[in-house]
Amino acid sequence: MRDEFRADLQTVSQLLVDLAEDARAAMREATKALLTADRAAAENVIAGDAELDQTYRQVEERVCDLLARQAPVASDLRAMITALHVAADLERMGDLADHVAKTALRRHPSPAVPAELRGVFTDMAEVADRMAGKIATVLAKPDVDLAAELERDDDAMDDLHRSLFAVLLRDDWPYGVETAIDATLLGRFYERFADHSVNAGEHVIYLITGEAATG
Amino acid sequence: MRDEFRADLQTVSQLLVDLAEDARAAMREATKALLTADRAAAENVIAGDAELDQTYRQVEERVCDLLARQAPVASDLRAMITALHVAADLERMGDLADHVAKTALRRHPSPAVPAELRGVFTDMAEVADRMAGKIATVLAKPDVDLAAELERDDDAMDDLHRSLFAVLLRDDWPYGVETAIDATLLGRFYERFADHSVNAGEHVIYLITGEAATG
Repeated sequence: MRDEFRADLQTVSQLLVDLAEDARAAMREATKALLTADRAAAENVIAGDAELDQTYRQVEERVCDLLARQAPVASDLRAMITALHVAADLERMGDLADHVAKTALRRHPSPAVPAELRGVFTDMAEVADRMAGKIATVLAKPDVDLAAELERDDDAMDDLHRSLFAVLLRDDWPYGVETAIDATLLGRFYERFADHSVNAGEHVIYLITGEAATG
Repeated sequence: MRDEFRADLQTVSQLLVDLAEDARAAMREATKALLTADRAAAENVIAGDAELDQTYRQVEERVCDLLARQAPVASDLRAMITALHVAADLERMGDLADHVAKTALRRHPSPAVPAELRGVFTDMAEVADRMAGKIATVLAKPDVDLAAELERDDDAMDDLHRSLFAVLLRDDWPYGVETAIDATLLGRFYERFADHSVNAGEHVIYLITGEAATG
């Protein structure tokens, strides 16, 4: 029974790693679509979101099946509930990549992001990519220190988010309201992607240490 | 054992109803703060969010306790997992009310929303309030027809969201980029509040009928 539980848990863990890698790849591809007005990349992300949702449902089915068959308690039960939370965060990260791709597609063949903002979105995408990568890593091999780094990465994302608004609010912003609206929403998508990475990281830390993150 | 499970389930249901009513009240108060530049209302919402988070954690603790003690299977297990999903949606709705309140506070004593946009935000808030009210009602007393209405309410929200952008994008928009950014984010907060209501409604429908919503 115990061995069986371990095997099931391993399957769930692997699905979560897959989900994290898929969400990361989706945001990377969405960023490519955004910064190079690449229609095929945008369409790939949008088509791929259904697969990501499918993996999410697999996690949920596996967990429910496991709860029903094995009735885990204590730390094993906690691991199952945590898996549900982490899967929900990762699924949402995939949605946010989908939103970025859709924004790119809506403006195609024009770029959705003007030259002045390419730098800040490149940086936001890099931070997002690093964070999703860390989530995949800590899901594959629990590492409290690496998971804790996500808080600092998120601070970097918040700084970039503020610098994005600083550009939009300059008196000489030449692109008008429509481009500012797109940039505002895109900024929010990357920032939320980072927030969900932090949430997922906190759940993993809780799982390892038994202690909820403060704040 | 069965009676005990029913009693526990009843407790969880009541917590979810409380959570839905709290999220609804928070968004109502946040809208008041937004449309009347009411500092006290904004501060109430922000202070109240911790309480809402606390109720959310209570749901989760109750569900975990119940899973550990009673090891439910089949529809009882499904009810527990659904309770976790619905609680997460409602907790997030509270966060979105908090974001609206913070936007109001950031611009105080100026109104964050100019006269031209008061109508559309009033309408969005009304739809949001109606949706949260329906969630509270169907959680207290399952009603598939009422839960299904949320999809239509969400269509109304999407229409309002589009009409918001139409105002922002008029050639004679006189308020500049900063106000457009605020309005874009505020619009997103109300729209996401509605999305989470729809999600919660879909979970309740699934619970009642055993059928997942399509699409």
